[in-house]
Amino acid sequence: MRYAEPIDRLIKAFTRLPGIGEKSATRLALFVLNSGRDYATELASSVITVKDKVSLCPVCMTFSDSNPCAICSDAGRDQAVVCVVSDYKDMMALEAMGGYRGAYHILHGSLAPLKGVGPDDLKIKELIRRLGQGGIKEVILATGFDAEGSVTAMYVAGLVKPFGVIVTRIASGVPAGSFVEYMDGATLGSAMEGRRAF
Amino acid sequence: MRYAEPIDRLIKAFTRLPGIGEKSATRLALFVLNSGRDYATELASSVITVKDKVSLCPVCMTFSDSNPCAICSDAGRDQAVVCVVSDYKDMMALEAMGGYRGAYHILHGSLAPLKGVGPDDLKIKELIRRLGQGGIKEVILATGFDAEGSVTAMYVAGLVKPFGVIVTRIASGVPAGSFVEYMDGATLGSAMEGRRAF
Repeated sequence: MRYAEPIDRLIKAFTRLPGIGEKSATRLALFVLNSGRDYATELASSVITVKDKVSLCPVCMTFSDSNPCAICSDAGRDQAVVCVVSDYKDMMALEAMGGYRGAYHILHGSLAPLKGVGPDDLKIKELIRRLGQGGIKEVILATGFDAEGSVTAMYVAGLVKPFGVIVTRIASGVPAGSFVEYMDGATLGSAMEGRRAF
Repeated sequence: MRYAEPIDRLIKAFTRLPGIGEKSATRLALFVLNSGRDYATELASSVITVKDKVSLCPVCMTFSDSNPCAICSDAGRDQAVVCVVSDYKDMMALEAMGGYRGAYHILHGSLAPLKGVGPDDLKIKELIRRLGQGGIKEVILATGFDAEGSVTAMYVAGLVKPFGVIVTRIASGVPAGSFVEYMDGATLGSAMEGRRAF
């Protein structure tokens, strides 16, 4: 005997979520079963609504429920500066930081030839098209400093430079609050290389 | 700036699941956002279906999509033997074991006066009603050996005994595969007390 078929089906659906194994999925399914009908309705409806209402902003490719997104349509932000990030979560982290008042471009991934992710799998064409329309003065490359993020930054820089805009890369170095003695050589190398007048 | 409203709403819905904090909920919501529409539809539909199709078996109180449940309507099982468990998951663990061929009764909780869980919050009336209808010869108490499970077993035994049925309690002792030297005193005490002719 297994769980009743509808319970099994829900467990399977939960198992497809990242980081949710069969044991966790079972716990979640039994929680739904034990919870009020209100919660089940709210969960199902919010899953559907997120697919119905949220789509990619045609300008910067971020997830948004407006077109263009709140950032691209904000006249108070400098739309001539475009910060290129790999992921929606990177953009959210930069927004949480607070100080940045320019626009974004979300690539939705990093180049990873070994995993079969090439330029056509990222929103690179969309960035090039946006540059072709003019009005952009600076492109800030804010992909990660891991191998994939670095390669992506280099690749995008190569395509962006011909447009005659300023291309910058965010700094790599010792994180705020960290001690020099605990840093690895690569980080210290970047920090030394990127040193500035004090 | 926060996540778009539909994303925020989905994050909130996921946060209510057990063991899912805000970070995990965000990861799950972005997964749904990035996944195909098929998956979102399947997840939403299985959440709703589980509430629509699954209800408590009127005989044994287990979650089931048939009435009575597959176990209660199985003529190959001994319906005169009823194993009382706290939780649906306990029943599933016993079924996974395989050897048991009797019926069940799910209490949906344990007595926990300090948490305000009294007899009326459990499916105890339903067990008593079932005993009143006759045909039951043995009640096996298979609640846990923690404080709450033990109190629950004692309480249920007190109500069941007047019906003149055999009331048994599953054994407490050293788990299969375990070493005596690592066992706590309470477990060894139970094991000694429950010793049998060999």
